[in-house]
Amino acid sequence: MLKKTGAQTVLMREPVSIISAAAITGPQEGQGPLSRYFDRSTEDMQLGCKSWEQAESRYVEDCIKLAIQKSGLLDTEIDCILAGDLLNQSIGTTFGVRELNRPFMGLFGACSTFGLAMALGAMLVDGGFYQHVVASASSHFCAAEKQFRFPMEFGSQRPPTSTWTVTGNGAVVLSREAKGRFPRVTAYTAGKIVDLGVNDASNMGAAMAPSAADTLIAHFKDTGRAPEYYDLIITGDLGHVGGELAVSIVREQGYCLKNYSDCGIEIFNRETQDTHAGGSGCACSAVTFSGYLYNCLTEKRMNKILFMPTGALLSTTSSQQGETIPGICHAIAIENEVDS
Amino acid sequence: MLKKTGAQTVLMREPVSIISAAAITGPQEGQGPLSRYFDRSTEDMQLGCKSWEQAESRYVEDCIKLAIQKSGLLDTEIDCILAGDLLNQSIGTTFGVRELNRPFMGLFGACSTFGLAMALGAMLVDGGFYQHVVASASSHFCAAEKQFRFPMEFGSQRPPTSTWTVTGNGAVVLSREAKGRFPRVTAYTAGKIVDLGVNDASNMGAAMAPSAADTLIAHFKDTGRAPEYYDLIITGDLGHVGGELAVSIVREQGYCLKNYSDCGIEIFNRETQDTHAGGSGCACSAVTFSGYLYNCLTEKRMNKILFMPTGALLSTTSSQQGETIPGICHAIAIENEVDS
Repeated sequence: MLKKTGAQTVLMREPVSIISAAAITGPQEGQGPLSRYFDRSTEDMQLGCKSWEQAESRYVEDCIKLAIQKSGLLDTEIDCILAGDLLNQSIGTTFGVRELNRPFMGLFGACSTFGLAMALGAMLVDGGFYQHVVASASSHFCAAEKQFRFPMEFGSQRPPTSTWTVTGNGAVVLSREAKGRFPRVTAYTAGKIVDLGVNDASNMGAAMAPSAADTLIAHFKDTGRAPEYYDLIITGDLGHVGGELAVSIVREQGYCLKNYSDCGIEIFNRETQDTHAGGSGCACSAVTFSGYLYNCLTEKRMNKILFMPTGALLSTTSSQQGETIPGICHAIAIENEVDS
Repeated sequence: MLKKTGAQTVLMREPVSIISAAAITGPQEGQGPLSRYFDRSTEDMQLGCKSWEQAESRYVEDCIKLAIQKSGLLDTEIDCILAGDLLNQSIGTTFGVRELNRPFMGLFGACSTFGLAMALGAMLVDGGFYQHVVASASSHFCAAEKQFRFPMEFGSQRPPTSTWTVTGNGAVVLSREAKGRFPRVTAYTAGKIVDLGVNDASNMGAAMAPSAADTLIAHFKDTGRAPEYYDLIITGDLGHVGGELAVSIVREQGYCLKNYSDCGIEIFNRETQDTHAGGSGCACSAVTFSGYLYNCLTEKRMNKILFMPTGALLSTTSSQQGETIPGICHAIAIENEVDS
């Protein structure tokens, strides 16, 4: 067993190498603090497509192709693509991977999807089933606004607790028997659904914070690690409001997080970009990891990261029917091989 | 390697036991030919809930609990639930598993979701990561009609090629080190997205048939098995129209299927139930397997089944934007241990 009975954390038998990563974003992200870490930031969000949904699929396809190209592998050497997005029936992903002609497994974890894809991909590789797997996730500001909130043309005001859906796609190639040294997935703590009764869809950071805290505490208990083990503990898209809340819940359980951040905090400049509580969407953690965090690891500015994409598992229907917002968070430990 | 390079099929290292299965359906399914194989068929489809979506979640929760109960395990012994459905942002599943307090991985493969859940579950168990995993999928006729087609009150006419979304949930418990002999997952052929340009959302059988044929031919080529190896090759929800099409595509490639059926054909009586081309929805393959096929295997009426849930990866948005309908099909080989 790689996992103790009752525990939520599995350790990889052999750490799984992340042999390449690619991040393509929209213009807003390209004007943000992480700009230089993205492979490309487009000038507009429509990319010449007829619809925002089709533009999202273009980000998916271009980014996965780029991640494969950067890995040095042929498309045909990819055993499987694990991916998902926020759109109804995951059409951003479907129409993005359609032409790639690889075995495909669709995932839905709302904005935690990239974590789920990396975790499942790492286990399938470590389990010996696949040699090379792509993990990917996307979102698109306009497509998400249109589907979840108001028509873009309506120009609605956004409350200060609201977050800004990141436009773009992040993708990594996970591999066994890597040629060279790469950042490696070493452990995975699977998230449970946690719902403390928040029902404000304009404050999803608060809705997801308890699930992030739940997964983080499970990770510490299962592994015996303290927060200081990691150079950085980074959630997916809690933003400024949810991030503070998660830190305070964890503190009540006796864990002091000094090395904490959130992808939604890192990706935009709160002062100059009018994005309110921060970034969100599947692409928030996906491009922050595939751009910025992967670079931190390969450049050895950091050696141990606990990457924790968060998801709010609501729909417009569930909110309209008065349901609260269930949250989930998957934690993936990614570490450099350190000379002993 | 459990898989040859370029192949889509993985063989389990040790076959993974399906130690229990549960199927709960709506009334229409309870009046069909498979009625006696279901654990329970409800008298109405609303189950006392305020909405059809909430009723779908009730089917999910009740059925997963029943599958765990039938396995003889405690809830806390389930390492992970893999599940999904057809509703926007998979709310049928989310609100169904919310109270179960187990690690959760959300999947989206449209009506192929149950196959994806079984396949991933089997690999996670065989890979040594988990001991006991639940695979589950649901759909609900009224919730699906409302979301994908017309309001129920509108009473729209349905064309003869259309299928009837199955109401209910199917769930299995996958396990290592089973006490006793159970049907076992032995192989998995991962599906690719196949889109031959069908854009008639009232003929999803035809849209999905090419993907079923593609996965089936890959399975034969990868394993060297002939159709006769299996007592039954059964697709998920191609129905009468798509099923014939899949058989004819496979025949053109030199494979003659004499032992073929489709869950959407088995579940309803075409003459008496007014369900047109057959059953569909995530629950179609999920309840047909968890009820009928699991019984065929445990009662030894069949010993080798190739179970092939099919999915149409469209949304109302993609159809309204003029997109064609991509299909996918995941094949899982399930076999009894035969005395040598």
